[in-house]
Amino acid sequence: MENIRIGIVGLGRLGKVHAFNISQNIPGACLVAACSLDKRELEYARNQLHVEETYSQYEEMIENSNLDAVCIVSPSGFHAEQIQLAMKKGLHVFSEKPMGLNIKEIENTIKIIDQCPNQVFQLGFMRRYDDSYKYAKKLVDNGEIGELTVIRCYGIDPSSGLESFVKFAKASNSGGLFSDMSIHDIDLVRWFSGKEVNRVWAMGKNAAYPELDQVNELETGVALMQLEDKTMAILVAGRNAIHGYHVETELIGTKGMLRIAQVPEKNLVTIFNEHGMVRPTSQNFPERFREAFICELKEFVECIQKNRQSEVTAYDGLQATKVAIACQRSVDTNQIIDIK
Amino acid sequence: MENIRIGIVGLGRLGKVHAFNISQNIPGACLVAACSLDKRELEYARNQLHVEETYSQYEEMIENSNLDAVCIVSPSGFHAEQIQLAMKKGLHVFSEKPMGLNIKEIENTIKIIDQCPNQVFQLGFMRRYDDSYKYAKKLVDNGEIGELTVIRCYGIDPSSGLESFVKFAKASNSGGLFSDMSIHDIDLVRWFSGKEVNRVWAMGKNAAYPELDQVNELETGVALMQLEDKTMAILVAGRNAIHGYHVETELIGTKGMLRIAQVPEKNLVTIFNEHGMVRPTSQNFPERFREAFICELKEFVECIQKNRQSEVTAYDGLQATKVAIACQRSVDTNQIIDIK
Amino acid sequence: MENIRIGIVGLGRLGKVHAFNISQNIPGACLVAACSLDKRELEYARNQLHVEETYSQYEEMIENSNLDAVCIVSPSGFHAEQIQLAMKKGLHVFSEKPMGLNIKEIENTIKIIDQCPNQVFQLGFMRRYDDSYKYAKKLVDNGEIGELTVIRCYGIDPSSGLESFVKFAKASNSGGLFSDMSIHDIDLVRWFSGKEVNRVWAMGKNAAYPELDQVNELETGVALMQLEDKTMAILVAGRNAIHGYHVETELIGTKGMLRIAQVPEKNLVTIFNEHGMVRPTSQNFPERFREAFICELKEFVECIQKNRQSEVTAYDGLQATKVAIACQRSVDTNQIIDIK
Amino acid sequence: MENIRIGIVGLGRLGKVHAFNISQNIPGACLVAACSLDKRELEYARNQLHVEETYSQYEEMIENSNLDAVCIVSPSGFHAEQIQLAMKKGLHVFSEKPMGLNIKEIENTIKIIDQCPNQVFQLGFMRRYDDSYKYAKKLVDNGEIGELTVIRCYGIDPSSGLESFVKFAKASNSGGLFSDMSIHDIDLVRWFSGKEVNRVWAMGKNAAYPELDQVNELETGVALMQLEDKTMAILVAGRNAIHGYHVETELIGTKGMLRIAQVPEKNLVTIFNEHGMVRPTSQNFPERFREAFICELKEFVECIQKNRQSEVTAYDGLQATKVAIACQRSVDTNQIIDIK
Repeated sequence: MENIRIGIVGLGRLGKVHAFNISQNIPGACLVAACSLDKRELEYARNQLHVEETYSQYEEMIENSNLDAVCIVSPSGFHAEQIQLAMKKGLHVFSEKPMGLNIKEIENTIKIIDQCPNQVFQLGFMRRYDDSYKYAKKLVDNGEIGELTVIRCYGIDPSSGLESFVKFAKASNSGGLFSDMSIHDIDLVRWFSGKEVNRVWAMGKNAAYPELDQVNELETGVALMQLEDKTMAILVAGRNAIHGYHVETELIGTKGMLRIAQVPEKNLVTIFNEHGMVRPTSQNFPERFREAFICELKEFVECIQKNRQSEVTAYDGLQATKVAIACQRSVDTNQIIDIK
Repeated sequence: MENIRIGIVGLGRLGKVHAFNISQNIPGACLVAACSLDKRELEYARNQLHVEETYSQYEEMIENSNLDAVCIVSPSGFHAEQIQLAMKKGLHVFSEKPMGLNIKEIENTIKIIDQCPNQVFQLGFMRRYDDSYKYAKKLVDNGEIGELTVIRCYGIDPSSGLESFVKFAKASNSGGLFSDMSIHDIDLVRWFSGKEVNRVWAMGKNAAYPELDQVNELETGVALMQLEDKTMAILVAGRNAIHGYHVETELIGTKGMLRIAQVPEKNLVTIFNEHGMVRPTSQNFPERFREAFICELKEFVECIQKNRQSEVTAYDGLQATKVAIACQRSVDTNQIIDIK
Repeated sequence: MENIRIGIVGLGRLGKVHAFNISQNIPGACLVAACSLDKRELEYARNQLHVEETYSQYEEMIENSNLDAVCIVSPSGFHAEQIQLAMKKGLHVFSEKPMGLNIKEIENTIKIIDQCPNQVFQLGFMRRYDDSYKYAKKLVDNGEIGELTVIRCYGIDPSSGLESFVKFAKASNSGGLFSDMSIHDIDLVRWFSGKEVNRVWAMGKNAAYPELDQVNELETGVALMQLEDKTMAILVAGRNAIHGYHVETELIGTKGMLRIAQVPEKNLVTIFNEHGMVRPTSQNFPERFREAFICELKEFVECIQKNRQSEVTAYDGLQATKVAIACQRSVDTNQIIDIK
Repeated sequence: MENIRIGIVGLGRLGKVHAFNISQNIPGACLVAACSLDKRELEYARNQLHVEETYSQYEEMIENSNLDAVCIVSPSGFHAEQIQLAMKKGLHVFSEKPMGLNIKEIENTIKIIDQCPNQVFQLGFMRRYDDSYKYAKKLVDNGEIGELTVIRCYGIDPSSGLESFVKFAKASNSGGLFSDMSIHDIDLVRWFSGKEVNRVWAMGKNAAYPELDQVNELETGVALMQLEDKTMAILVAGRNAIHGYHVETELIGTKGMLRIAQVPEKNLVTIFNEHGMVRPTSQNFPERFREAFICELKEFVECIQKNRQSEVTAYDGLQATKVAIACQRSVDTNQIIDIK
């Protein structure tokens, strides 16, 4: 079987992770083209990853590079259009979340995706491919913890990035804490429960950097959600975890409880020193989800090879975004928001 | 110094704990009288604890027993009146929560307490006297985790008691999950933050025993609360922890996070067997808070001896009850409730 | 029943713990006399603990104070003689380990104890009364981990005391690391296995303070022991735990493994900060074994009240000392020592 | 750069792991030939891994397949000869431990390896390439825990394999528990300390299967070792871990302690159920060291590509085997064995 020829757009932090994986860690795939507006990023692709063709224009790349598939890791504002162009061009598409900035845009994109049933579309909800999450999902699906009653999801970025976030928050809006940070958690809530979110109340507090109030951004936020079957879900999102990258998920059921990364342990090392007993913790998403990023792309490639669709659909992207937007609206109004 | 002469009313499960402690574990105090409607409970007091005077009427006990203080562990509906009677009689009062079933009743009781500034009044928020909670409070007060942004409190009873709860739920209303279970957690939120709760949204799900819907009781509930300074608090309350008695508190601050009983470890034993690595967990409140129950009564006695007031005031009881009632109203209406 | 009248000899660090417990925490006992050569210690007993009679001479105390029992917490060199005097005087005796400095002395003491079958003698192997150790013992006795094959015991003192140990090591010999530190562990090996130690090879290393080589003392040591039924036991003893007081015991059986204080957790608090996830650890023996010190004395008092003997016998003291002495001889010769 | 052409000999359990990794997970390498006496294993190689050339004779494979390198995963008795043949043929060699069954054989092999300084030789001490071990090594080398005083290594196989081990123990000698299980641990002791082992005392106990006594095999064993600088090392080896695959290493230093896999956690999932709090554990070596097996082969390939030698030398293999043999001799004689 021929190698799947993939082109990537966007070579920022996460883009580099995907580019490296496609070129090194995904048997059956090869990275043949890269697109970015940043020349140093393209140099990296050529020199470090031996990518042959580099572009500053996305349209040019998908026109000229004889690709089988694209991997979209550009800024969120470009996702919808780039997905649509690739789909129309007959390419398989792996896209980072979100699928678009608003519901209308996403719905239009889905229409186009739906017109191409033989092309694979997969969204980058990589947590579903993490060993610990998969292990938990299996236990839940096997009924080990009974019927779910409460789901608690923490997604807190390391504080090391907070200062620069504050600096640039004025210039470029993040889309809001819940869209930016919680969308993976919202997907987990839907994935574990198999249910949709009906109502949400969300709020936030800017304690370390009160000036974030002025640019309508949040340092730390909480959302409480009621699902269609009355299952309850709690989101804590933040940008200020001193100990690193804190992604934790809890599932409370009628027959037991499960926690994924109750402590986000970096490895199996325990240290006893003047502080007491210390477990080092994961410092960032590329470290925590290193394997998951590889596995989701292996799945994408296998879907292409075996001519089937991925478990993570465009519809999942739509629904997660709906909830994230409702969270933000709840913060803005300090009222419960119903999700239709 | 003479021993403080204490009479106890109520010798149920928690009453027995207090009675045993007063008679055995509190230097400077002695249990001289006990009151209960249940003859076997009075026999227990006489035979096991060598209590000399036993009564079926509370008024009689406080009239005849030459007491310095009373310890009130009767059913919640009697608390307010019994506190008032003891106060008027010149006795020091240690009372279990809640102070009363409604706000009016509690406010009246506080008026009477306030008229007796030389008598000690202490409410049974024993968690404040638990070693781990005290250790955490000190760290928080020392600024170790910066300014608080999120407080998460779990109070989940062991599932071993759920079946009988369901059986009797029709006959005797518990006052609601949040009043019954979360009042200690609400006190912790106020204690750690030093702030009052402004708004709350609460909900529940009956998954193991859907029949609880019909008697307006909850098996598992969640509340999200906004404090006056925007600090966020999450309550999870329940009656269905398979692994035992799960009381866990988390404090997220701008400089770190703290968890008390992230795992409610029963002791220091770790077992490796066919299940993997196992830590046994606390099975019930008398086990988990054994020491705290002793320490709160030591504090009560010391307050009497040193002629000072306890840290846990009647006002704390009032405020916690207000929030618990608001949680219940929120469940009933599925709306946000503002607390005045 | 009358209170048991107890006199204490020795009011050093551990002596103060016992004195406080007898006067405050042991129902049915009272501390009526204290003996020490240090005037400030006697003042402490009088002023803090309200002990009525204080002595500088042990013989005087047991002669004059109308005691029921003595608690011996004097320097090790006095134990044997003080036990013998008290026994001959008809008193019940609780003595700290070791029972004496050499085997001959201990055997003579046991002869005298054996002549007083109606007097209680108990040795201060308090770990047997610790909740976690009791829980583990029950599991082992119930066969939960099958037949024991390996027992591993760590007894490592906090490094905070090491510098002063080094300073005074020249002047006053500790009796050796294994006699000083491992005797509790040797008792645990015998208690859990029900078997005697046959052979031992022990060694040490002075890395932080190589000057300890010159005074024949050890900073850290290890012993490997073969029991009569081929069960293997490992001792690690030390004076240099940076994180505090590390007493850990492991039991490997044919059906599972057990660890007591795998992490010597101070309480139930977990901290997430710049170091990662931190569990504070126990800092010293009074903290770690606070409850056990109370429980062993409660048992002593109950033995007197119920006219029965304690589980911890003089013979246990003899056997543990034999093994500790063999360990030291093994260090001195770097050879395997057989224990007859 | 051309792909490194590798042939593998041995396709048992570990052989399959290496074969799969070479064919899928090692960029820059390809598996072109496989050799086994078992036809089904060769079918696996052809059908699952698309290996083109399969052989039943090792000599034939290295003669005919135009290889750059061989990966030796055959039974231990063949290692020495196969290494020598490959080296003489000019091939790079990756070999599983041990390098041979006796010291003479290994020394001869080393002579031949030393005559081929431009060919890479690497021994399969994969633990050195495990993330957690690498992290610990860095901390130790940075002086974070000061000077090492005690190293403790557990290597215990899952009990799931014990029954069949007992069955076949009579027919085929394992080489002894310490050679079979502890050789990786011995390498860790040398790697972490940078010192050689001088003296050892080892012993064992057959409790679950006493019949192992008759075939001179051990179910569980312990060795105490004294290193040249007096550092102490403890080995616990076994074949009977109910909870899975227990490989744990502890490093005690003058400034702190480190543990690698204190609990051999399978993943980041924690379960709360009727047993208490449960962490699932690793079940076998392919699971626990999945990544390490990949990393050691990546290193091997990089050594070839960059024309340098691996950190894991033939001499490491020799020294580890010397110690393992001394452990067995100590078990046989129940005496301390000096290692020259």
